[in-house]
Amino acid sequence: MTLEEKVGQLSKELGWEMYEKDGEHVYVSKKFKDLIAKRPIGALWATLRADPWTKKTLITGLSPQQAAKAINALQKYIIENTRLGIPLLISEEVPHGHMAIGATVFPTAIGQASTWNPKLLEEMASVIAKETYAVGGRNGYGPVLDLARDPRWSRTEESYGEDAYLVGKMGEAVVKGLQGQRLGEKDKIMSTLKHFVAYGVPEGGHNGGFNTIGERELRHHFLKPFESAVRAGAGSIMTAYNSIDGIPCSSNEWLLKQVLRKEWGFQGFVVSDLLSISGLQGNHRTAASGVEAATQSIQAGLDMDLSGVGYGDNLLKAVKEGKVSMQTLDSAVANILRVKFKLGLFENPYVDEGEVLAKVGTMENREIARQVARESIVLLKNENNLLPLKEGVKHIAVIGPNADNIYNQLGDYTAPQPDEKVVTVLDGIRALVGDRIKVQYEKGCAIRDTQHSDIENAKKIAKQADIIIAVMGGSSARDFRTSYEETGAARVEQKTLSDMESGEGYDRATLDFLGDQLKLLKELHKLGKPIVLVTIKGRPLNLSWAQENIPAIVEAWYPGQEGGMAIAEVLFGKYNPAGRLPISVPRSDGQLPVYYNHNKPKHHDYIEMEAKPLYPFGYGLSFSHFTYQNLKVNVVEKSEDFECTISFEVSNTSDIDGDEVVQVYVVDEVSSVVTAVKQLKAFERRHIKAHNTALFSFNLRKNDLKLWGADKRWKTEKGSFKVLVGKSSEDIQLEGEFSLSKDYSL
Amino acid sequence: MTLEEKVGQLSKELGWEMYEKDGEHVYVSKKFKDLIAKRPIGALWATLRADPWTKKTLITGLSPQQAAKAINALQKYIIENTRLGIPLLISEEVPHGHMAIGATVFPTAIGQASTWNPKLLEEMASVIAKETYAVGGRNGYGPVLDLARDPRWSRTEESYGEDAYLVGKMGEAVVKGLQGQRLGEKDKIMSTLKHFVAYGVPEGGHNGGFNTIGERELRHHFLKPFESAVRAGAGSIMTAYNSIDGIPCSSNEWLLKQVLRKEWGFQGFVVSDLLSISGLQGNHRTAASGVEAATQSIQAGLDMDLSGVGYGDNLLKAVKEGKVSMQTLDSAVANILRVKFKLGLFENPYVDEGEVLAKVGTMENREIARQVARESIVLLKNENNLLPLKEGVKHIAVIGPNADNIYNQLGDYTAPQPDEKVVTVLDGIRALVGDRIKVQYEKGCAIRDTQHSDIENAKKIAKQADIIIAVMGGSSARDFRTSYEETGAARVEQKTLSDMESGEGYDRATLDFLGDQLKLLKELHKLGKPIVLVTIKGRPLNLSWAQENIPAIVEAWYPGQEGGMAIAEVLFGKYNPAGRLPISVPRSDGQLPVYYNHNKPKHHDYIEMEAKPLYPFGYGLSFSHFTYQNLKVNVVEKSEDFECTISFEVSNTSDIDGDEVVQVYVVDEVSSVVTAVKQLKAFERRHIKAHNTALFSFNLRKNDLKLWGADKRWKTEKGSFKVLVGKSSEDIQLEGEFSLSKDYSL
Repeated sequence: MTLEEKVGQLSKELGWEMYEKDGEHVYVSKKFKDLIAKRPIGALWATLRADPWTKKTLITGLSPQQAAKAINALQKYIIENTRLGIPLLISEEVPHGHMAIGATVFPTAIGQASTWNPKLLEEMASVIAKETYAVGGRNGYGPVLDLARDPRWSRTEESYGEDAYLVGKMGEAVVKGLQGQRLGEKDKIMSTLKHFVAYGVPEGGHNGGFNTIGERELRHHFLKPFESAVRAGAGSIMTAYNSIDGIPCSSNEWLLKQVLRKEWGFQGFVVSDLLSISGLQGNHRTAASGVEAATQSIQAGLDMDLSGVGYGDNLLKAVKEGKVSMQTLDSAVANILRVKFKLGLFENPYVDEGEVLAKVGTMENREIARQVARESIVLLKNENNLLPLKEGVKHIAVIGPNADNIYNQLGDYTAPQPDEKVVTVLDGIRALVGDRIKVQYEKGCAIRDTQHSDIENAKKIAKQADIIIAVMGGSSARDFRTSYEETGAARVEQKTLSDMESGEGYDRATLDFLGDQLKLLKELHKLGKPIVLVTIKGRPLNLSWAQENIPAIVEAWYPGQEGGMAIAEVLFGKYNPAGRLPISVPRSDGQLPVYYNHNKPKHHDYIEMEAKPLYPFGYGLSFSHFTYQNLKVNVVEKSEDFECTISFEVSNTSDIDGDEVVQVYVVDEVSSVVTAVKQLKAFERRHIKAHNTALFSFNLRKNDLKLWGADKRWKTEKGSFKVLVGKSSEDIQLEGEFSLSKDYSL
Repeated sequence: MTLEEKVGQLSKELGWEMYEKDGEHVYVSKKFKDLIAKRPIGALWATLRADPWTKKTLITGLSPQQAAKAINALQKYIIENTRLGIPLLISEEVPHGHMAIGATVFPTAIGQASTWNPKLLEEMASVIAKETYAVGGRNGYGPVLDLARDPRWSRTEESYGEDAYLVGKMGEAVVKGLQGQRLGEKDKIMSTLKHFVAYGVPEGGHNGGFNTIGERELRHHFLKPFESAVRAGAGSIMTAYNSIDGIPCSSNEWLLKQVLRKEWGFQGFVVSDLLSISGLQGNHRTAASGVEAATQSIQAGLDMDLSGVGYGDNLLKAVKEGKVSMQTLDSAVANILRVKFKLGLFENPYVDEGEVLAKVGTMENREIARQVARESIVLLKNENNLLPLKEGVKHIAVIGPNADNIYNQLGDYTAPQPDEKVVTVLDGIRALVGDRIKVQYEKGCAIRDTQHSDIENAKKIAKQADIIIAVMGGSSARDFRTSYEETGAARVEQKTLSDMESGEGYDRATLDFLGDQLKLLKELHKLGKPIVLVTIKGRPLNLSWAQENIPAIVEAWYPGQEGGMAIAEVLFGKYNPAGRLPISVPRSDGQLPVYYNHNKPKHHDYIEMEAKPLYPFGYGLSFSHFTYQNLKVNVVEKSEDFECTISFEVSNTSDIDGDEVVQVYVVDEVSSVVTAVKQLKAFERRHIKAHNTALFSFNLRKNDLKLWGADKRWKTEKGSFKVLVGKSSEDIQLEGEFSLSKDYSL
């Protein structure tokens, strides 16, 4: 390969301007031809993305069949018009479905995590892989493995929450679902883990901002989910925008070489985030020029540049000037080509356009989306069993800005959707009750705008009803009035009155419901009627007033295209909710950060409020009632490892079938370095029929209890461990303990 | 020395129960005799402390003369009743004056720092040393060098603010003032630096809580003020309660041996915080027993135990069991005895009781307290030059909970004071205006309690006045209803309705004015009269509403015993204020942490508000007007170092004499590791007469611009640096730059 060809392989360009469309006809754009003429590139990103940022709509974007054609045309062009004919790696966004027109839209990650059901997430990821593969994608961006400890952060919705163990389990499942057994399977795509690492805890909640976390905290928490997913075989990994204690992740040799490759044995390739190599110069100011930035990144072990301008000319210059050795360049190119070979791109770069219709957006896929939505719903409060709604209800008022707004329930990154594809709460309720119950709707107010509120009319309608369903929260719906950073993050402008208050770049300083929402809720409350508050949103907001005053609260996050039906099923008892919070819900932004597994000692309370959150990690109610009993903890120690078996029984003592999510937390009672006050070590969601009892059993080994010693080695230390079995991180039902008689090295 | 004698030297016991008092007669308590009989101890702490926690009052505590007698009696007893007769080290609290009955009460540290006047602080510290020495103290706890980046933290008032450079300069000055040229001078006491290290940024603002800060952030910021003070000769240093990234500060060998002794050449001794050795077992759970805790601490390099129960029997056992070597023990004992020798305790353990009256609480000392108070006052807003109050004013209403409450203006740790010693704002105004102006007062409401508010009466009085002086804020006044932790930290109880909302243990979750204060201010505002808001408090509170609505705002922190007079002088133009904020004032708790010198990149704004604080670091107004001109930046590079000279002129273009605080910030434009967006590197407060111009000149050398490289070495890197000369961290008046042509190692 020539130097130009090598450098080109390391470039991943923005894909949505690489095709042109003329009616049904789709072809390669002049932009793509010019690009390739200059230097063959290695990959395209987000070719099928469609949203206000890419300026692709249902009209200007591609249907799934057109998408497959476009990708095939691009592959054909590069194969036939370059000396080596190396196929492109087509990378697509897959955070909650393939982010492309026509694909199935699942709940966003924070909702996915609320299912506490890795098996279901694996199934979901299989669908996503199939839909992406069908249109020519071979690489999907996800899962996001960032720990979210600060709900001000705009991308909280994209995370699996605050806990490394839960995030790791979910991440592993998604990697398996996306990739299958090995890279290169049909209907499977390679996963790109992101964002490596500690991107979810920027100081002050400022997206992309720095943090100053130390190595032990990184290893005990932030690195863990990535290790799980890498060991599960993830083929690539993305460096984060942020710096950690002064070292940008996109030039962090320790992270990319020592931890990722040497310690974890990673065999895939490392890709930058969009413009994160250039960010060394522009944001972190650790590079004086683009050439310096490229040099620092590739020497640190970053193989591929997402943008085209981070490496490209800069890297070419760096190699020519002797700043980067040919050996370093070759190593990066080999990492990319190895993956392309494994993916089978050289054997078959094209996709079968005839299979698209049978694979994308099918009823079967839709049913999985509905199941994820059902399982993601968290019942936060249910005073006097207001839910499920009783037979006598004859007239329902559905009120609020998120009751009938399709984009407000889909989350960030979502492609345009035909209205009929998405089921809102209002749609769901109407579909479920038919003519049996009168359903009236009034928006009442927007998420943020206060100039067009109509609280009076909302009250008028609510007054006539037996029960009020108030649907509020937030929105990550981008619109064309919003301006965007080069990275795609929204630029916050005070003037805009769109609903959007979450999603990349939309960091919050308060966790209050914006606009007139709380005012509307308080006015509805004054009517003295039973109210169910359904929240649709991307992050924990302040529910303190609601918890005090509203009898029933249902957390639905952004539930995706089937969300409205799933919510309706919960309201009417067609589905018994069992979602659990993957993130603590604070009482106020003044408590931040508040997460369950902070280091010892226990927090003191504040003057104004407890230190504990309003709803703790792992919390969620059910229509069933479960009791826990017969905890047995047994340890067998061997020379190299031990096996600790934890078993207990859970009985459904109610008349209603339901899922229970059992949670096992461990406290390392004494440790040579400070450890968490408690740490989730095992969990399981299982369906238990009314009046039945289920036996649960979990095993822990040395790898599950290790700590990063003062001597910078992993070890599991002798001494006693407390076992806490609970319905949440705070609601502990059974307590046991066990002891290890000696230290174990790892 | 016997093993018992050695172990005993390492114990510092709580001192206030070691004396008994019978009228004027003071003698050694049975408790002390019993203690000494068991094992001679090395030191006593806070023997003269008097407050609700120690349960010492003006009646049960000691006057300065009695104090000198008590200390002499204790020294005499231990010298005459132990085999070796080693005198005690008498350690006292000196955060803002000697915290003992009769001593002068200065503004708390956050106010001291607001003077931006290290010379004045050195003078203040000299007074504190003299007053402490006069009654037998030989060691003072202070300065506090914690960086305060989270105003929720209850001890913000004890800090010099958020910036390492400012804190370091203030700390150095205080060490010099307390200690003089060398340990052992008459009228001087040894300084104990605290709290080593990063104690001011517990996660969530929870006092004593952990943080997970990495090494670079520690070295770039948190360690710096300690290094300055150690190099200034500080004789001892206290380990902090918190852990950092999993390692408790009281068992951190890297911190106590590598950094403190090896890198900085520290020759004094290391002391624990109260019960911080026991905290390894009880809080951090890194020790399974008291013996383990003692072993870990002494092996890490912690010489002396503040409590008596951390070492003592535990250490004795550890040595006997071979867990701690005799060499380790001897080293700790030698560190303590060396200091006692240096302090001249063996030559003269006693104090001259005849000198007490001439040294403690004198008019001269009081004048210094008033000067510190004057210089600490920060004028935050002065719309249309409302201040100084004009001649025509005939009737003033002084309103608010802090207008006439002596303890609310004195800060935490303060000993009881006779009413006549403390000048409140009401006292100060009355003293200043005499009969010329009618002054009426009404409290209106308490700081927290809302049951006894009388807003109506406050309005009635305010209505009759030409101008309203509203005096509000917070309180660190302890009372007997408050319960305390063993460490002396207050235990937060929701029930108590005392004013206290700041001071050790009183962490806040919001930064709102508590109780009915804002309601009272809004009601006063409605009267349409000019209002001056004077805030007396220990931490930044939310002033956003006031900034929008109140024409003049004066920040006085806790200004000490002379505070009321100093404030009155500012209000009436007898003193032209020039205090500057040593800590950013946030717009809301949702912005935390907000401090000026965060790492790059610049913050994005939040949806609801800017990322910038309401008032930035370094901000403060004057009655004068100053202009800046003629910036010259010149660099001379030599082989081992360089000298960068920065000079400029400041003209007082107004008719009023005044102080200006010039501030020089530097931006390292490109650096191999991420550095701060800007960093204060020099400042000076200088008096400039009306229509005069002053020339300022500062020098920077390699040590001023160093960074901690990725290779874990200090270096100053070549390249360009921006010089920003300003009136605050945001209000930059002049910009220059310079370049270094090569790297410099350190």
